[in-house]
Amino acid sequence: MSALEITGVDITPVAFPDPPLLNVAGVHQPWALRSIIEIRTGDGLVGLGESYGDAGHLDRLRQVAGELPGLDVFDLAQLRRRVARVVGGAAAADRHGLTGGSSERKTELSAFSPFEVAMLDLQGQAIGRPVSDLLGGRVRDTVPFSAYLFYKWAAHPGAEPDEWGEALDPEGIVEQARRMIELYGFGSVKLKGGVFPPEREIAAIRALRAAFPALPLRIDPNTAWTVQTSVKVAEETDGLLEYLEDPTPTIAGMAEVAKRAPMPLATNMCVVEFAHLPSAIEQGAVGVVLADHHYWGGLKMSAQLAAICETWGLGLSMHSNSHLGISLAAMTHLGAATPHLSYAADTHTPWQNGVDVVANPLVFTGGAVPVPTTPGLGVSLDRDALARLHENYVRCGIRERDDTGYMQRFQPGFTRNDARW
Amino acid sequence: MSALEITGVDITPVAFPDPPLLNVAGVHQPWALRSIIEIRTGDGLVGLGESYGDAGHLDRLRQVAGELPGLDVFDLAQLRRRVARVVGGAAAADRHGLTGGSSERKTELSAFSPFEVAMLDLQGQAIGRPVSDLLGGRVRDTVPFSAYLFYKWAAHPGAEPDEWGEALDPEGIVEQARRMIELYGFGSVKLKGGVFPPEREIAAIRALRAAFPALPLRIDPNTAWTVQTSVKVAEETDGLLEYLEDPTPTIAGMAEVAKRAPMPLATNMCVVEFAHLPSAIEQGAVGVVLADHHYWGGLKMSAQLAAICETWGLGLSMHSNSHLGISLAAMTHLGAATPHLSYAADTHTPWQNGVDVVANPLVFTGGAVPVPTTPGLGVSLDRDALARLHENYVRCGIRERDDTGYMQRFQPGFTRNDARW
Repeated sequence: MSALEITGVDITPVAFPDPPLLNVAGVHQPWALRSIIEIRTGDGLVGLGESYGDAGHLDRLRQVAGELPGLDVFDLAQLRRRVARVVGGAAAADRHGLTGGSSERKTELSAFSPFEVAMLDLQGQAIGRPVSDLLGGRVRDTVPFSAYLFYKWAAHPGAEPDEWGEALDPEGIVEQARRMIELYGFGSVKLKGGVFPPEREIAAIRALRAAFPALPLRIDPNTAWTVQTSVKVAEETDGLLEYLEDPTPTIAGMAEVAKRAPMPLATNMCVVEFAHLPSAIEQGAVGVVLADHHYWGGLKMSAQLAAICETWGLGLSMHSNSHLGISLAAMTHLGAATPHLSYAADTHTPWQNGVDVVANPLVFTGGAVPVPTTPGLGVSLDRDALARLHENYVRCGIRERDDTGYMQRFQPGFTRNDARW
Repeated sequence: MSALEITGVDITPVAFPDPPLLNVAGVHQPWALRSIIEIRTGDGLVGLGESYGDAGHLDRLRQVAGELPGLDVFDLAQLRRRVARVVGGAAAADRHGLTGGSSERKTELSAFSPFEVAMLDLQGQAIGRPVSDLLGGRVRDTVPFSAYLFYKWAAHPGAEPDEWGEALDPEGIVEQARRMIELYGFGSVKLKGGVFPPEREIAAIRALRAAFPALPLRIDPNTAWTVQTSVKVAEETDGLLEYLEDPTPTIAGMAEVAKRAPMPLATNMCVVEFAHLPSAIEQGAVGVVLADHHYWGGLKMSAQLAAICETWGLGLSMHSNSHLGISLAAMTHLGAATPHLSYAADTHTPWQNGVDVVANPLVFTGGAVPVPTTPGLGVSLDRDALARLHENYVRCGIRERDDTGYMQRFQPGFTRNDARW
């Protein structure tokens, strides 16, 4: 095969309905934003990528897109250099703060990621191989995911209730878990916390344990607690959790908690780039890292993170923001080719309620996604759906994720719950 | 492309003339052993790998070879499982001890490595891409190597002098360097030490510095020195060395030296597998790791080592044992695709004196090897040469590398110089 050159790139911002899910920063807006990346080659192949849809990020993706025509789809090294040239040296603004802080490096790798995924999709299509083969080969045939429970309102204010209903107490959470497990078959459960005082969230964990005696449980308060509170919660939930995710801010804070917590601490907030690993490991701050190819620099760099976790004896799981079917496919191939994936991955898929830009979304069976064995990522665009979701984007008026600002419309005095309790 | 299945594997032990190069363990035997791996597919492609030729290793490679027919050449994950099944749980005997100790894991990864390289060669050939593209793409067009100087006798006892002549004093070492640099253009110089008392080897370093004022220098005594001696040598060579390689045994010993040495310490002896990295890093034992795909588990795992070195701010170079042109090609592709290769790599190529099993060996230009851009590794077998080198193997009678035993034939009381001074 001679060089397979990129002839064009389309970046399409889309929006899809998002339920009023509560978190430390506020509440999800009615529309979740994503960007859909299509890379085209001269012989008619289209490679897909998916990333955040915030305006600043979208600008960076468009700047990168302009540099890509002529690039060989196998030349990921050259992609890195072009991304660095175009968007290097700028740290993204980040108004939701749910994946740790921002940095020049993380901003650059976030802009690199969806193009890497799309180029791997093209490589796979060109050679007739699934992306998992390009990542070293499949070590599992299905990738397990976890139910991702949220406290939520019954409806966005002023709108009709969604099909999931309200969940503001242990009963609501258990009911949500039952429905999600019934629909998807999940074999482990994560509760997004940081919304209510910890005792109330511990009660939800206890209710989940009572309702599902055998399922591994996790809670993620997104750094809503002080060190002292975190230790107290850890002690009170001893024996209930497979891991405790981001109870408190900073590597130093997590290290304090880790010394006294009976379960491993997990993070996607204090360790969100390679530069954080040495000090987190030195301080013993975390036992599990949640990889996320969207900001760790794509699938191959996520595999490097996995190798580091394996070497230092850290567990590995996967983080998820609201996403569509391209990201799910990318996560699935990564999970398939990562021997060290030691915990079921997070996914927001149930919260999409079936809306997608892909014509053939991957399907959950028994809480896991069978790994596509067709060439590339194994998903293709539904162009009508893409057009509809882009129309949503144009009309919805949202250009930045801002859970806090949205919450303040209904609770004017609201501020983020960071280390509030 | 449908599955590209392996139909057959040939493992051919070969031997090629090796000059009487001196080291901590004794002296190189007259023949260096290697194994040449050919993996064939149904459509007539041949993928090449190269590894050690010692009998135990050869046995393991043959056991693995028997498991490979039917395997898809993209399925490196399945290769790992089959290697583990066949040779897992056995730690190799190691009679030369020049790459650190042995372990079950290192033994298994050493058996995995040449098959991984051969399968990457096949993948590249099948899709028309150089191996460097399969490792993430070329970040440099030429890979720099270092002159690798050895104290040596003029000839193996009883044989004719070789073309390199004797080098047992600073003048001999400088003369060897001049010749090697004239022939290959190397831009940095490494002296294999551990042969004579340190003062004598420091004198050689000083002579090299005087003769080549601008070239980076290194010395590698293969743990011939105590901690105290290592510190003394480090102080005396302050300003002369880009790094000091394996002055003393063990991670703890290296850490002691590192605290007081003005230059970085490098190793291919105390950190030779992933499990060694955490404690070496925690103790600050090394500043540079010499990767070697032959025992680190192939090219992709070597790239993971590189990512770890980059993350922790360690330098990266490459180690070399006596090798032929397949290994040189593999090292070159790895070097081409490894952004973090921060030092010129070692190579024994000059000591082959032009003998090779490949028909089109890569050529040094200005001390570096231009990275092949043809499909796969970019080298092919010279079958006549392979037959001749196999005949050497059959006739030479050597089945294990044993520098110490060979030295004892001429110096009956000789024992290894480990921490001797």
